[in-house]
Amino acid sequence: MTEYRFLKACRREPVDRTPVWIMRQAGRYLPEYRKLREAHDFLTLCKTPDLAAEVTIQPVERLFVDAAILFSDILIPVEAMGVPLEFHEQKGPLLGKQIRGRQDVDSLKVPDPEESTPFVMEAIRILRRAFEGKVPLIGFSGAPFTLASYIVEGGTSKNFIQLKTLMYKAPQVFHALMDKITRTVISYLNAQIAAGAQAVQIFDTWAGILTRSDYEEYALPYTRRVVAGLTRQGVPVIHFANNCATLLPSIRTLPVDVIAVDWRIPLDEAATIVGPDKALQGNMDPTMLFHPPEKIFECVRDVLHRGEKASSHIFNLGHGILPPTDPENAVAMVEAVRSLGRKP
Amino acid sequence: MTEYRFLKACRREPVDRTPVWIMRQAGRYLPEYRKLREAHDFLTLCKTPDLAAEVTIQPVERLFVDAAILFSDILIPVEAMGVPLEFHEQKGPLLGKQIRGRQDVDSLKVPDPEESTPFVMEAIRILRRAFEGKVPLIGFSGAPFTLASYIVEGGTSKNFIQLKTLMYKAPQVFHALMDKITRTVISYLNAQIAAGAQAVQIFDTWAGILTRSDYEEYALPYTRRVVAGLTRQGVPVIHFANNCATLLPSIRTLPVDVIAVDWRIPLDEAATIVGPDKALQGNMDPTMLFHPPEKIFECVRDVLHRGEKASSHIFNLGHGILPPTDPENAVAMVEAVRSLGRKP
Repeated sequence: MTEYRFLKACRREPVDRTPVWIMRQAGRYLPEYRKLREAHDFLTLCKTPDLAAEVTIQPVERLFVDAAILFSDILIPVEAMGVPLEFHEQKGPLLGKQIRGRQDVDSLKVPDPEESTPFVMEAIRILRRAFEGKVPLIGFSGAPFTLASYIVEGGTSKNFIQLKTLMYKAPQVFHALMDKITRTVISYLNAQIAAGAQAVQIFDTWAGILTRSDYEEYALPYTRRVVAGLTRQGVPVIHFANNCATLLPSIRTLPVDVIAVDWRIPLDEAATIVGPDKALQGNMDPTMLFHPPEKIFECVRDVLHRGEKASSHIFNLGHGILPPTDPENAVAMVEAVRSLGRKP
Repeated sequence: MTEYRFLKACRREPVDRTPVWIMRQAGRYLPEYRKLREAHDFLTLCKTPDLAAEVTIQPVERLFVDAAILFSDILIPVEAMGVPLEFHEQKGPLLGKQIRGRQDVDSLKVPDPEESTPFVMEAIRILRRAFEGKVPLIGFSGAPFTLASYIVEGGTSKNFIQLKTLMYKAPQVFHALMDKITRTVISYLNAQIAAGAQAVQIFDTWAGILTRSDYEEYALPYTRRVVAGLTRQGVPVIHFANNCATLLPSIRTLPVDVIAVDWRIPLDEAATIVGPDKALQGNMDPTMLFHPPEKIFECVRDVLHRGEKASSHIFNLGHGILPPTDPENAVAMVEAVRSLGRKP
């Protein structure tokens, strides 16, 4: 069997053309997903292996992307740690546990992923059978810092004041929390790899709120522990942080295979900072998909051109695809990569 | 009379020590402000010259900063353009006008600032008398792109989808809107200078959501027109964009005196990008004020040290001071600059 071009690009091996997939490619912008959501709430979709698999497959069939990413949520293992979790249509995730002192951290579990989140591993097993020979499957987890931010803030946040207050005023509590999250993430990703995930991506959505110095003190060491703790068996590891331009000099020190970047930094400049020993993934501005298809074609060309500066490039958006996106424009983007990304 | 050290630093002239002021230094973190707010709503404070002046003076008396900035809001001239404006305690500003087509733009005014916002100029005149010989007074405006984002989104936004949709799908409408905002900002800032503002700062709060290429197409030309349209009479112009690291190569081309940067980019690296012909302002992370005073002292030392790479440095936070900040910690920060920022 020939190896998938996505996995080859992760390993910086030669490929026939630039591979492409889309962060959040399974989800709200697709009418076939919204139809399923009419019958099932978001967490039910995540926790029912057949449904999660169906949603994962939807964009592969519509877009002809080069990789599938498991439909799930970064907060699934957080709930398994013992933090009550709900999703509200407007407010997003709401987490029901205050972390103020050491005893709050002590009350959290480091869950066994096969026991607490068996539906994730089962969805992966279903998908591997469904995708065999077609596309590789990406598993994922939130990075410890981002998961800590959701736990401490109780949801999304604007200025992360509760998180920063904990970090600065009760660093021992913060570090105890990060230690537990880190151990959770390691076993969660290892279980995904054991179940069949062929690559894993670590999402550090909120790292970009930190100064580089704080990132190196409070976030990076835990991500480093996660990466070191993976029993990779050849599975490439991708790191994504949103708003990462000023953190790249730190992020590039992680022993990962691929660094994914947001749209703010031109990809050629990211390549210069990251250097030749890692692949780059990204980074078209998701709002470019509100352009008409001709202009999307031009945007793809620009990102591909800048990506030539990287030792290896996987095309993606610079953040998740936005819910109001016209699926036809996502198709146009993928088609543009398929035609413009061919290697001589 | 000796010239104020803040104004000298703006002009890159030698100073006895690094000057310091704080973005949003007048406002919610101060108990004396909250007391006034019990009796008056936010817009009443902005629109009553004696009250706006009182709020402007409060932090000068408490913190001993080297400059005062007029208490007002960037949306004041937007309301004067004919966009209904309300402030909600939780949701922030709500603007009551949809901009979807050319006729929506045509219905907006380019207001005469002395007629439509006389309270701003009157507050400036009161403050110049009150501050004479003590501190210089900074006036300000939002940059055209940021004001357009509030108008089109109807308030703050997460992904700016309505704004981007207008930009990409109806560029003529967007550019017509930007033209009207630009003319409004020019006459608004010129009126502030004529009334006595001794420096002006242009706030481009949301520029950081744009790729550099979009910034250069949709935002920068209008800011450049604003700067070119000012009858400066020696008044320094400061430009601040939040999340500006990837935009600095474009921003540095503006003919302003000072470039203010957020906390994400280390100040010495910003100095390298900006070059020797502009002063730098910034950029301590506002959440560092949740540290105890000893640690704040260290943070100030680090920012001052990095600021030595700039041709001239004005100390400030990297964004507005946050409402839950302990005023004593703001005092500690200013005192640290006053003692550590002395020049040999």
